[in-house]
Amino acid sequence: MQGKPIDVLLVEDNPDHAELTMKALKQNNVLNEVHWAKDGREALDFMYHLGKYADEKTSPRPGLILLDIRLPKVDGLEVLKQLKDDPQFKSIPIIMLTTSDRDEEIAKSYAGGANSYVVKPMDFEDFMKKVKELNLYWTLTNNLPGEW
Amino acid sequence: MQGKPIDVLLVEDNPDHAELTMKALKQNNVLNEVHWAKDGREALDFMYHLGKYADEKTSPRPGLILLDIRLPKVDGLEVLKQLKDDPQFKSIPIIMLTTSDRDEEIAKSYAGGANSYVVKPMDFEDFMKKVKELNLYWTLTNNLPGEW
Repeated sequence: MQGKPIDVLLVEDNPDHAELTMKALKQNNVLNEVHWAKDGREALDFMYHLGKYADEKTSPRPGLILLDIRLPKVDGLEVLKQLKDDPQFKSIPIIMLTTSDRDEEIAKSYAGGANSYVVKPMDFEDFMKKVKELNLYWTLTNNLPGEW
Repeated sequence: MQGKPIDVLLVEDNPDHAELTMKALKQNNVLNEVHWAKDGREALDFMYHLGKYADEKTSPRPGLILLDIRLPKVDGLEVLKQLKDDPQFKSIPIIMLTTSDRDEEIAKSYAGGANSYVVKPMDFEDFMKKVKELNLYWTLTNNLPGEW
């Protein structure tokens, strides 16, 4: 499971950030399929095939989850907890991708089982660069869990 | 806690791999202090200030742990389990750094709470490149947990 196309679940309520992130993720050599959930409830629905995500074919198990913290309906730290407490999802790497660089939120994320914590820069170029670095690391440097 | 010097605990029984890894870690702009534990027992002693690591000043809490899997005395997956089950250490990112790319070991590592899984290439140049990528991601792209 290295260098192969992966399904990425992006959980982001800010449409501008979501658009930029998806653009940056698609600029690498790795052809990712990005699924966008606009709040914490949609993210959980996607994972558990509920509501509009009932069709498993169009809401496949992601290889990687990019998760914002401040989200409507269900908070990012709560989504993190629910997925990391569930044995069927515990192995999927979750990278917190947020504008907050508060030590308390960083600590809570790692304590909750987040695999990594990346702060979104305010500057456009820096934002794109950061997401590209993230993407390259997780799809090429790192090995993701496969099926076995 | 970004871009600052960090203490890295490297758990590696192969002296050649340990030497190369430490060399690569020191070639970046981030001035890491690398502590080398030669087996799983030494790694746990370092973390819990036991035996020759009783002095907390010379065995500080690491910001990052690079952990081989096949280790003498205590296996890498067991070290991972003990540290991730301990609330005082759960937040420290642990990156598995191993020659094995077996799906079963990758899956067990993520299920055990490993933050990331990186395969050591056999080729010297590739090895150095991989460790540098790892170091850059975890010290510059990613935010590590600090004290709060």
